[in-house]
Amino acid sequence: MSSQALNVAIVGATGAVGQEFLQVLDERQFPIAELKLLASARSAGKTTTFKGKTYTVEELTKDSFKNVDLALFSAGGSISKKFAPIAVESGAVVVDNSSAFRMADGIPLVVPEVNPEAVKEAGIKIGNPGVGIIANPNCSTIIMLMAVNPLHKVAGVKRMVVSTYQAASGAGAAAMAELEQQSREVLEGKPVTMDIFPFQYAFNLFSHNSDMKPNGYNQEELKMVHETHKIWNQVNGDQTAITTTCVRVPVMRAHAESINLEFEKSITEEEAIAALEGAAGVSLINDREANRFPTPLDASFKDDCYVGRVRRDISRSDNKGLDLFVCGDQIRKGAALNAVQIAELLV
Amino acid sequence: MSSQALNVAIVGATGAVGQEFLQVLDERQFPIAELKLLASARSAGKTTTFKGKTYTVEELTKDSFKNVDLALFSAGGSISKKFAPIAVESGAVVVDNSSAFRMADGIPLVVPEVNPEAVKEAGIKIGNPGVGIIANPNCSTIIMLMAVNPLHKVAGVKRMVVSTYQAASGAGAAAMAELEQQSREVLEGKPVTMDIFPFQYAFNLFSHNSDMKPNGYNQEELKMVHETHKIWNQVNGDQTAITTTCVRVPVMRAHAESINLEFEKSITEEEAIAALEGAAGVSLINDREANRFPTPLDASFKDDCYVGRVRRDISRSDNKGLDLFVCGDQIRKGAALNAVQIAELLV
Repeated sequence: MSSQALNVAIVGATGAVGQEFLQVLDERQFPIAELKLLASARSAGKTTTFKGKTYTVEELTKDSFKNVDLALFSAGGSISKKFAPIAVESGAVVVDNSSAFRMADGIPLVVPEVNPEAVKEAGIKIGNPGVGIIANPNCSTIIMLMAVNPLHKVAGVKRMVVSTYQAASGAGAAAMAELEQQSREVLEGKPVTMDIFPFQYAFNLFSHNSDMKPNGYNQEELKMVHETHKIWNQVNGDQTAITTTCVRVPVMRAHAESINLEFEKSITEEEAIAALEGAAGVSLINDREANRFPTPLDASFKDDCYVGRVRRDISRSDNKGLDLFVCGDQIRKGAALNAVQIAELLV
Repeated sequence: MSSQALNVAIVGATGAVGQEFLQVLDERQFPIAELKLLASARSAGKTTTFKGKTYTVEELTKDSFKNVDLALFSAGGSISKKFAPIAVESGAVVVDNSSAFRMADGIPLVVPEVNPEAVKEAGIKIGNPGVGIIANPNCSTIIMLMAVNPLHKVAGVKRMVVSTYQAASGAGAAAMAELEQQSREVLEGKPVTMDIFPFQYAFNLFSHNSDMKPNGYNQEELKMVHETHKIWNQVNGDQTAITTTCVRVPVMRAHAESINLEFEKSITEEEAIAALEGAAGVSLINDREANRFPTPLDASFKDDCYVGRVRRDISRSDNKGLDLFVCGDQIRKGAALNAVQIAELLV
């Protein structure tokens, strides 16, 4: 099938990530035979243009996946749970952007630059009905691993301490709109409208709004830990020790992460920079003289993750510690681009 | 002298911290006999009201400190370097908010809740001419230690990994105005005005703008490390290992910090929370069920530092690791309040 164009369905076609799927599929000239846009009944009938042709969004039903080779899902976990197995039964491969299947046994969780082999190992290919969900990791996990995996390959990451600076986009288009509206309201001296978050978001920040678990970590933080172990295939072996603190900051669409790394083996700054320079999907912005390092705006609307502040950890007397900072577009590499790159592994 | 009112001079009286000095002195009913407001020639002649009385700002000169008992400086390092020794020669005690003397031998660096004894040990008291500069630590150091010191006393901090989320106020009133102006411009779709920072600040964030050192840490980060060692009196002994990443976020006046702690001894979450509950100047906001933790807006215009996200570090198998999050008002506890509290140690 490798050079053949595929029948592609987008589930959640009207959402922020769904729209970005179309953008990325277009940019990367993904080989599409027929395109089907699916969404809830509420969005059915809307139209979207793709490569100059107008498509009408159809209501997602159990019959939507006939003759579909590849379905890209980004419509929330409950939709994925219900419809991804139906799509697979119909013969499609599903790339799912929700958290529904990420930690499920037998479902590969893939960052193409990190563990592309997981797709083949799971026996997933186009036209092989019944085996076919691939999970797209959480955006913070993807962006972190883009920066960390090249170093992990060189020296083995023993422990990570990560603090995130997460953009509004991770909570959806309505959260981005709320940040914008609240910012206007604050600047006009008006009371702020709080529909999405229970806190003022404009000119403020807060602990990530995902469910809090009994151990005091929220779900977003635990995703970064558990997904990393799965992607690095550490489920049954020695696991990298990871602690994460996830924070929502008033930035629109790119996440930043401050990452402290402890390695099994020594790694110098120069070796780290060389590894990052050679890594696909990574760009360095690491100019100490100009005090120029990655910002979320550098990464916004870009495919690459931007890494900087690469330095030997002065809290350690050996060469087994590094600090670094990464910024990545939450909607692109954190979601749509990574999913399309997974799909590219199949063609 | 203990119950006697003092002749007080404010150096940098028209700045953001200078104005906050007046606010805090008023609120805390600091015993003032005569008040003198000093600033550059440019600001001389301006008037300010204090306790219902109007004061005219005078130009700072070498003769400004006659009969002054206490001088609170916040006019930048070069002004402090030049005029603080003159003030001391004239018989005043100086509490200096700049970084000019913080690391100097014999100059106490004080957070009153942490090391109040350092003032007496240095032989500094009102009416003891010739010995008399006390340094106010960096805002990020103060806010960090407010959260960490109560735990350090219980279990001894062996290593800290800190990432900051720093407000505009740390770069002065002009930076706060630039954040506001840029936010308006972004919302109106206009190009942003960049006078203070070389990056867009609105809806963005960036590595702290202080000088970058050859080891890849910026000055702000190294202040947090070295000042902590001095405040904890670890200059000649075993030092707590500390690595810091300082980031400027689009928030107005309260800093936040994500702190990972490794302890010498075991400490449970319950013990940590008890220690924080009993700590002066600390308030807990640590409600897991409601997902309610400190935000910069909680801390803005408040004296206390707000601590939350207190949890056992899951990257460790023992009870020697904790993560937490702190927010503190950069202008109050990070600067003016801490300085006035130092002054209160003298009366």
